[in-house]
Amino acid sequence: MTAHVVRIGVIGHGTVGAAFVKLVKQQSDTIAARSGVRLEIARVAVRNTATHAGSLAADVLTQDADFVVSDPTVDLVVELMGGIDEARTLILKALASGKPVVTANKALIATHGAELFAAADKSGIDLLFEAAVCGGIPLIRPLRESLRGEPIRRVLGIVNGTTNYILTKMSEDGASYADALAGAQQLGYAEADPTADVEGLDAAAKISIIASIAFGANVVAGDVYSEGITKVTAADIAIAHRLGYAVKLLAIAELENSSGSVSVRVHPAMVPHHHPLASVRDAFNAVVVDGEASGSLMFYGRGAGGDPTASSVLGDVIDAAINLNKGAHATLGVLTKAKLLPMAQTSCEYLIPLEVADKPGVLHAVTGIFANNSVSIRAAEQDGIGSGARLVFLTHMANEAAVQACIAQLRNLDVVMHVGALLRVIAD
Amino acid sequence: MTAHVVRIGVIGHGTVGAAFVKLVKQQSDTIAARSGVRLEIARVAVRNTATHAGSLAADVLTQDADFVVSDPTVDLVVELMGGIDEARTLILKALASGKPVVTANKALIATHGAELFAAADKSGIDLLFEAAVCGGIPLIRPLRESLRGEPIRRVLGIVNGTTNYILTKMSEDGASYADALAGAQQLGYAEADPTADVEGLDAAAKISIIASIAFGANVVAGDVYSEGITKVTAADIAIAHRLGYAVKLLAIAELENSSGSVSVRVHPAMVPHHHPLASVRDAFNAVVVDGEASGSLMFYGRGAGGDPTASSVLGDVIDAAINLNKGAHATLGVLTKAKLLPMAQTSCEYLIPLEVADKPGVLHAVTGIFANNSVSIRAAEQDGIGSGARLVFLTHMANEAAVQACIAQLRNLDVVMHVGALLRVIAD
Repeated sequence: MTAHVVRIGVIGHGTVGAAFVKLVKQQSDTIAARSGVRLEIARVAVRNTATHAGSLAADVLTQDADFVVSDPTVDLVVELMGGIDEARTLILKALASGKPVVTANKALIATHGAELFAAADKSGIDLLFEAAVCGGIPLIRPLRESLRGEPIRRVLGIVNGTTNYILTKMSEDGASYADALAGAQQLGYAEADPTADVEGLDAAAKISIIASIAFGANVVAGDVYSEGITKVTAADIAIAHRLGYAVKLLAIAELENSSGSVSVRVHPAMVPHHHPLASVRDAFNAVVVDGEASGSLMFYGRGAGGDPTASSVLGDVIDAAINLNKGAHATLGVLTKAKLLPMAQTSCEYLIPLEVADKPGVLHAVTGIFANNSVSIRAAEQDGIGSGARLVFLTHMANEAAVQACIAQLRNLDVVMHVGALLRVIAD
Repeated sequence: MTAHVVRIGVIGHGTVGAAFVKLVKQQSDTIAARSGVRLEIARVAVRNTATHAGSLAADVLTQDADFVVSDPTVDLVVELMGGIDEARTLILKALASGKPVVTANKALIATHGAELFAAADKSGIDLLFEAAVCGGIPLIRPLRESLRGEPIRRVLGIVNGTTNYILTKMSEDGASYADALAGAQQLGYAEADPTADVEGLDAAAKISIIASIAFGANVVAGDVYSEGITKVTAADIAIAHRLGYAVKLLAIAELENSSGSVSVRVHPAMVPHHHPLASVRDAFNAVVVDGEASGSLMFYGRGAGGDPTASSVLGDVIDAAINLNKGAHATLGVLTKAKLLPMAQTSCEYLIPLEVADKPGVLHAVTGIFANNSVSIRAAEQDGIGSGARLVFLTHMANEAAVQACIAQLRNLDVVMHVGALLRVIAD
C-alpha cells in the first residue's frame, strides 16, 4: 500500500506545537503503515523564526501564519497558537479553502464553536478539537461517535488539573489553600495569575464544549455558572471526609428529565468516597458520563502538558488526513439552541460551613433562618474555634434559590462572622 | 435535513439483542436529527419466533438467520447470536455482499479477527466490534482512532467483571473464594460453570483483541498466557493490602522496548493502592493504556449487561450507517504477525505464599532454593497456622523461568505443604 502524503501546516510552536512536530516525525512510518497516510510537516508558523532556527528547517519555518493557511502545498492546518480573534480568522479561512483544521484552542471552541462547526460542514471537511478539552484524554471522539445514540443524563468532570492538585494537597496533607496554590505554582501547574483555574473559568469553557456535544445543543462558556475553590478550607475538606466524601471542583452538565433543559455549572462538590471521581488525584483529569443505557463511564488521564495534548492533536490529524483522502468528514450535525436551567432552579444537598459567635441563642437564630426558607437539615456539627465556634450544616435536598436566601440572611445575622464555601453534594 | 433510512437486520434477540432493539426505537428520532440516518429494525432472527411474538412484529421476526443476511432490504447486519462457526459464516456472507456488520462476538473476533477484518476491507465496508470487549465502555474506537498515532507501551485491564466482583468481596469482606463465587453466581454475575471467567479465558480473549489493535499485530486468544484466580486466598489479599497493593485479575499487553516483541498475558496481580485500577470495584471494568506521549489513560465502566453492551452496539451501528451512505469505512490496516514474548522470558516482582512445616531449618531450606535460582528476596513474612506456618516472600525483579524453577523445587521439599497463587507486582 503506497501511503498518501498529507502536508501539515502548523500555527504555533510552543510546548504543544513542538511536542506535536516531534511526535509526527517519530511516528510517521508507523502511521503510514497502519493508516495509509504519510504525514509531513510542511510549514510551522512562529512568532520569531530566529528562536526556532535550531529545531526546524529554514524552508519549514515562517513568521507568516496567514501564509501557512494560504500555501497551496499545505493540505491540513493545525492551529496551536491560542487566543481567539486571529485564530478564528485563520481557521475560517482554512475551512473556506477546503483545508481541514485540527485545533487545541479551548477558548475559541467554547465561544465560537457553533460558527466554526457550521463553516466546516459547509465545506464538507473536518474541524477536530479533541485536544481542546482535557489534553491527552480521548473524550470528544467517544462522546461524538461512540455515544452518539446514547441517552446521556449527566456529565461530571474533574477537568482542571491545577485545582485538583491544590485540593489533593489540602485533602491529603492538610495544606492551606494558599500553601497548596504556592506549591502548584512552583511545579508549574498554576500560573502566576491563577484566576482562570481557581475561579473555575477554565473548567467552565471545557464543560460548555462537553455539554454541546453530549446534548447536541449549543452551550458557550458564558452560559456556565461558575464558583471556584478559593473559599474552600482544609477544615471543610476534613469535615467532608468524615462524612464520607472527597471535595473536588466539578464541571457538571445535567439534563433535567422533566423540562428537557440543561444545567451547566462549575463548583466545588462533595463526591462519595466510593465514586470513581473521588480517587482522581493530583493534576489528573477524569470525566464521568452517566448514560441511561451505558451506565457510568469514566475517561481518565492527563488533562494538560505538551506530550499528552500533542497525542490528542495527532489522533485528530490522522483522522482528518484519512477523511481528506476519502472526501469524508465528521460532523456534529446541527446544534439546537440550548434550553439552560438557571442555577437558582437547581437542587441538591449542601454543606454550609459557618463561623459564629459562641454564645447562647446562636444555634436557634441560625436554624430559624433555615426553617424559614424551608431548607431542611440532615446533619450539623459544632466545634470551638478561639472565641467563636465553627458550625457546619448538611442539608437534605434543597433548592439553590432557597439556600442562597439562607446565606444572604445568615450574613446579616450579627452572630455570624463568616460563611464559608458552599459544597454541593453529588448524588450517585 | 432528510434522514437516510438504514434498515438493520439483527441476528439474536437475547439480553443484548432485546436491549439493542429497544434502544434503537427509543433513540431513533434523536439519532436522525443528529446524524442524518434513520435506523429501522427490519429483521430480527431468533431461535423460536413463538417466544418473541409478544415483543416484535410478525413481519420482523424470523427463524432464518441466513435470510436476515440475504434479504435485499437489509442494509446492515448486527450479529448478537454468539458462537463461532455459524456467526463467522453469516458475517463473511454479509461482508461479501457489501453489508457492514456490527458484532459483540468476542470469541469470534479473538479467533478469526484477522480474516474478518480483511474481508471487510476487501469489500470496503465496516466490521465494527466495540461491544465485543468490555461491554459498554468506549475502548476499541479510542484505541483504533484517537490513539492510532500514539506509541503505546502497555495496556493493563480489569476486563472481567465476575472475577473483579469476587476479588472485591474477598478483599473488602474477607470472604473466601468459594463464598465470593457463590455470591457472584446468586447475583447472576457468574455462570453455573464459572471456568471461562475464573480461569482467565474470557479475559484472555479480550486482551488478544486489545493487543491486536494497540500494536497493529495479529494476536489470537490462544496466544495469551493465562492464570486464573482460583488459587488466590483472602489471606494473600490481606498480605498484599498490608504491603500497599490491591489484588486484581489483570489482562496485560506489553511491548518489550528492546526486542519489539509483545507479552500478552492474564494473571492475578498486585496493583499499588494509588494506581487508578486499584479503586475499580465490584463488577466494573477498566482499561489503562500507557502511551509514551499520552501518559496513562483509563477507560472505565460496565463491562457487561444488556443495556451497556447495546449502547456500544448502537454507537457502532450509527457509525457504520453513516459510513455506508458516504461510501467510507474504518479499517485497522494490515495487521503484522505478532512477535510474542514467551511467558518464561518476562520479568517482574513476585509475591509467593507458602505453607510450610513449623520446624527448625525450614526457612534456611526455602531461602536456599531462592538463592540457587538467583531470585532475590525483598521482604518476607511468617505467621503460625495450626501445626504449620505461613511464609510469604516478596521478590525483587526476577525472571519468570527462574521463579517457576523455584516453585517446582519448593514443591519437592518435604517441609513445603502448599504453594499458593503467585501474585505478580505491577510496576508504575
